[in-house]
Amino acid sequence: MLQITQSDFETALRRCAREVEAELDAILTAIPQSGEIERPEKLLAAMRHGVLNGGKRLRPFLVLESSALFGAKRGAALRVAAALECIHCYSLVHDDLPAMDDDDLRRGQPTVHKAFDEATAILAGDSLLTLAFDIIADPATELPEDARLKLILALSRAAGIGGMAGGQALDLAAEQDAPDEAGIIRLQAMKTGALIRFGCEAGAIAGKASNADRERMAEFGSAIGLAFQLADDLLDLTSDAQTMGKATGKDQQAGKATLASLHGSDWARAQLRGLVKQAEDLLAPYGEAGNLLRAAARFVAERSS
Amino acid sequence: MLQITQSDFETALRRCAREVEAELDAILTAIPQSGEIERPEKLLAAMRHGVLNGGKRLRPFLVLESSALFGAKRGAALRVAAALECIHCYSLVHDDLPAMDDDDLRRGQPTVHKAFDEATAILAGDSLLTLAFDIIADPATELPEDARLKLILALSRAAGIGGMAGGQALDLAAEQDAPDEAGIIRLQAMKTGALIRFGCEAGAIAGKASNADRERMAEFGSAIGLAFQLADDLLDLTSDAQTMGKATGKDQQAGKATLASLHGSDWARAQLRGLVKQAEDLLAPYGEAGNLLRAAARFVAERSS
Repeated sequence: MLQITQSDFETALRRCAREVEAELDAILTAIPQSGEIERPEKLLAAMRHGVLNGGKRLRPFLVLESSALFGAKRGAALRVAAALECIHCYSLVHDDLPAMDDDDLRRGQPTVHKAFDEATAILAGDSLLTLAFDIIADPATELPEDARLKLILALSRAAGIGGMAGGQALDLAAEQDAPDEAGIIRLQAMKTGALIRFGCEAGAIAGKASNADRERMAEFGSAIGLAFQLADDLLDLTSDAQTMGKATGKDQQAGKATLASLHGSDWARAQLRGLVKQAEDLLAPYGEAGNLLRAAARFVAERSS
Repeated sequence: MLQITQSDFETALRRCAREVEAELDAILTAIPQSGEIERPEKLLAAMRHGVLNGGKRLRPFLVLESSALFGAKRGAALRVAAALECIHCYSLVHDDLPAMDDDDLRRGQPTVHKAFDEATAILAGDSLLTLAFDIIADPATELPEDARLKLILALSRAAGIGGMAGGQALDLAAEQDAPDEAGIIRLQAMKTGALIRFGCEAGAIAGKASNADRERMAEFGSAIGLAFQLADDLLDLTSDAQTMGKATGKDQQAGKATLASLHGSDWARAQLRGLVKQAEDLLAPYGEAGNLLRAAARFVAERSS
């Protein structure tokens, strides 16, 4: 089996980012300007600011690669990928609001409510969320009707109260009332895991794969979603340790408990290796065709930013 | 042709409100509580507060009656009506936020951010918006797949940047830079008209009516959407005039221009009569079956609250 190098993977990830950004740009540009409706230029500019933000586009990459695995057309997969990125970016725009995380900067740029204003940021998030479903429901997403409906259902569940938004609400509640370990795992599976899982499942749905394949891809998504969060926690712990001059995260500054802070960085690194192995094993039936997804699992676990 | 009295109409509207509230309650209750996900109880309570708020449920009524006109099943129509009400109520929750209209009360009750907190109100709005698409995409909405997809596409367009959210953004911009009359009409057609229009069109889509019928129902929706806004403006003008002891709204207190404030209340009343006539005429092909929708057009134009 051909091994994919980190550099091969990064080239593929950058190519995906370029394609998805071109797709998002085209979709936003196509929003009509004349006739019965008037294009709200400031809102559109805020949506662009929120979604064309130079992200790594990991979730779209998962959609494109899982779609390739099950033979869904790349054009349709790109639209599904763009829809998923709209949801991810809407959540960032709303999470950055003063009433939520109150962040002024994202990727070195002013957040949407800083570059525009709070009301516009709320509406830009709302409009990106709404646009995601528009994109998949549109016949321009050339997939069978049942596949488009299943994608919309799975995406709305991944984004809503039983998924990302619900996880965010549990995370807010965790500031008052610290959850136990099982609670942290559930919270994270919802807050960050659900969209990653959807990205991996999306290709199986778009390609009308068997239920067994869909379930396998969802499990793959769950594994790398958990790895994504653990790697994030580990980065926090390590950068805290560096910043604060402490050797470990055991006595880190007061804040939210994470699995990494509960069990320490050695445990977290061992967990990450286990999750990558589990993710790679899940892809065994697909042979070499799964190589880029295997590389994505390693990338997620080993990322340093 | 049997005439529907105001009282018959109000009975039908109340029945619809009860049925839609029961449907919304059932949908929210069915959000899972156990297993891999944890139900965020505070967020769910905030969604309930936002959507089970004692509204008149005019938009759901339009969905149910237009569905009856084209033979779509009532059970499916109720779910589409519930989805539309989720979108309407999400927009109220977000519009009430401090960064937007900053309202503390709605229908005599604390707004969601007052009863809970701002972050929860933002997430509750997001989750209601997301839930709307979940509801229609779910096979429990027993409509053909193409009809469900068309409903999702039409609803996302009515709610997004080219519809309600875009109209809200134009309305915010109008506070700085007053639009001309054509601009006011476009803004209102988007901000309040688009969801009402969708409600009327929804039955034609759900019942797989011809494109001509769908277009006719959309025009009916546009007419009563405009009437809805004019009646609202007229109420503002009249209550201002009463409060301020002035005979007309011509020199009303500084504020946003409306068609009624530009042209006066006599003009607005004449326009309303014309819009009701236009709406009634559009329903002519459907005979008595359109009586409750005709009554809805009169109700919208004559409402006093």
